[in-house]
Amino acid sequence: MINTKLLFEELSQVREKSPLVHNITNYVVMNNTANALLSIGASPVMAHAINEVEDMVSIASALVINMGTLSDEWVEAMIIAGKKATEKGIPIVFDPVGVGATQYRTQTAQKIINECKPNVIRGNASEILALSNANISTKGVDSTVSSNVAFDSARELAKLTKAVVVISGETDYLTDGERDVNIKNGNPMMTKVTGMGCTATAIIGAFVGLGKDLFISTACAMAVMGISGEIAAQKSVGPGSLQMNFLDTLYKLSEAEIANTFRDE
Amino acid sequence: MINTKLLFEELSQVREKSPLVHNITNYVVMNNTANALLSIGASPVMAHAINEVEDMVSIASALVINMGTLSDEWVEAMIIAGKKATEKGIPIVFDPVGVGATQYRTQTAQKIINECKPNVIRGNASEILALSNANISTKGVDSTVSSNVAFDSARELAKLTKAVVVISGETDYLTDGERDVNIKNGNPMMTKVTGMGCTATAIIGAFVGLGKDLFISTACAMAVMGISGEIAAQKSVGPGSLQMNFLDTLYKLSEAEIANTFRDE
Amino acid sequence: MINTKLLFEELSQVREKSPLVHNITNYVVMNNTANALLSIGASPVMAHAINEVEDMVSIASALVINMGTLSDEWVEAMIIAGKKATEKGIPIVFDPVGVGATQYRTQTAQKIINECKPNVIRGNASEILALSNANISTKGVDSTVSSNVAFDSARELAKLTKAVVVISGETDYLTDGERDVNIKNGNPMMTKVTGMGCTATAIIGAFVGLGKDLFISTACAMAVMGISGEIAAQKSVGPGSLQMNFLDTLYKLSEAEIANTFRDE
Repeated sequence: MINTKLLFEELSQVREKSPLVHNITNYVVMNNTANALLSIGASPVMAHAINEVEDMVSIASALVINMGTLSDEWVEAMIIAGKKATEKGIPIVFDPVGVGATQYRTQTAQKIINECKPNVIRGNASEILALSNANISTKGVDSTVSSNVAFDSARELAKLTKAVVVISGETDYLTDGERDVNIKNGNPMMTKVTGMGCTATAIIGAFVGLGKDLFISTACAMAVMGISGEIAAQKSVGPGSLQMNFLDTLYKLSEAEIANTFRDE
Repeated sequence: MINTKLLFEELSQVREKSPLVHNITNYVVMNNTANALLSIGASPVMAHAINEVEDMVSIASALVINMGTLSDEWVEAMIIAGKKATEKGIPIVFDPVGVGATQYRTQTAQKIINECKPNVIRGNASEILALSNANISTKGVDSTVSSNVAFDSARELAKLTKAVVVISGETDYLTDGERDVNIKNGNPMMTKVTGMGCTATAIIGAFVGLGKDLFISTACAMAVMGISGEIAAQKSVGPGSLQMNFLDTLYKLSEAEIANTFRDE
Repeated sequence: MINTKLLFEELSQVREKSPLVHNITNYVVMNNTANALLSIGASPVMAHAINEVEDMVSIASALVINMGTLSDEWVEAMIIAGKKATEKGIPIVFDPVGVGATQYRTQTAQKIINECKPNVIRGNASEILALSNANISTKGVDSTVSSNVAFDSARELAKLTKAVVVISGETDYLTDGERDVNIKNGNPMMTKVTGMGCTATAIIGAFVGLGKDLFISTACAMAVMGISGEIAAQKSVGPGSLQMNFLDTLYKLSEAEIANTFRDE
């Protein structure tokens, strides 16, 4: 469904158009997320004040809502921004970090899905299962189940919410309820850098900000993420150098590197 | 107006005296900002609680106010801290991040300028124009106009506010309404690392914390920033390594490196 | 009291069991702290909402409370989480960042100690002295006194609070009021990377999360911290590369490296 040519074309458009991505995200990853968006050629903005999120999202090409370090005031801002985005036809990407770990997270995720109607939902397998009420316990913010177990739940969730659903993991599974794709890129060391999942979500924001087919753009974003992480990990001795090399790789990623590395099924 | 000898002298004083810089800044860049201040030899502190900012700023050598991820509670703390700093004669450096992008940002920036009377204002060209009510639209937090267009506005703003005004960009323009200086150092890759502007503002805080001529100290800070970024970029393959090399360069920057790299006009 | 074999055994258990460490910490260091915990093999979670901290701490192996960028709402969450942790027998590690610098910090630290009864308290010499009401002025968040001056105060504080007390510095002093140990590892460049102290506190969280002898586990954590910093600094030209190399070293640290580097007295 996606291939090197398409991938590089969408990446080139991100670099050229530099979509403004409005992030309402968690404190832990704001810096990484902004740097990843800049490295890939997009333009990040972080803003969460209730009295400005409507104005900010209105000038953005995409809205990223990430509930990593949530609190009532931030959730209120997420929902205000999300409603405005929907009204304006601006795509929303939602990252339900740690859903299932606490009741508050589960309720908040459901509230955001119901009230903002996100266009893309990305989580790890535990999170997607928790969203589908599969009664799987989540250990903090890291996944405890393998991705393929959660795939049926993902497809149901996609049908129910009309969103593209992404389960990231060793293999990334993507579905919009009809179409699906598996992306095989990545490296286990990526799980040792905080916020790699959140970064994937933000990069999806950059790609869907192009205003093209949401499923294809999401797949391109996840492929660029996995390819860059895989190339960067090969040059890295640990998570510290991986973080650095990952940003450098996003910045320089070439069509030849994509062709040599991309693996789907 | 400034030269290698003066630059290295002020840098050496920052390293020796290690001025305490109190930052009320945004979530995205707190880590970078603190690391840049430590690398240059200053002592950073971040504190934003309304019930402690007066105490904290009273023991500081400079106050940095950055409105990147503003909200009402933080703005209130900024103004309380700013008033106390003015009362105590502690210099204030203000970074109006994203002013012009939303009405809330524009109002907040004006409020901070009116109530805190900052001694230095640093922004990109879009931000300085927005502050001067030049009706330029701002795209998120990145600049959409070239620096030289904004220079007349900067001079007017400097006269109006009695502040040193800095437009950072490919060339940095500095003016206090009477004197002006252009600094030619830097590298375009710096725009791909989040918070480089915010870091410049914080480094100005360290230099004006020496208690010397504000215009000269601000110019020295911007020169050290640009020189370090330029040297670091030459060793970097992308934004990830640039961020690392930038901190390393700030830490080690020598008089010889300054002499070989500094370019003003 | 501790030796290479014991150190590597506890480190291996952290890597194997991957304890979930719940951090209520400051904005500046959240990213570093999470990365350091991941690099060492632990599982970090950051959550501060009053309506979820009890749920979150209940599934954690340790709670880390760090008051670096405190405000009333966060302090309330710290205390709610701390009380729940005590009720559940989950160890609490407390980092009284900047205590003594403002009255608010001093009052908050005392409140947290009284109401949460932390099992481990880690600070620099100024902070531990301030906690002991020694009337030493603190300069922001960096230490102004040498570690050994504060050692008697640390022992008194340990007896008073029943906590393991750690003074980190050129030499790290640890005491539980009865036993004490000095760890000689580290490198002065570590003071130029923001949040190295906060990272030490978080790593203590990972080790005490094993549920073994608190004093021994704390000593192992501080030794691993100092050894990794020392090894990383030898490969680093400045604070930027130190931060990267530190994470890489934590990730790979071997028994042979510990044997070659560990120095206590």
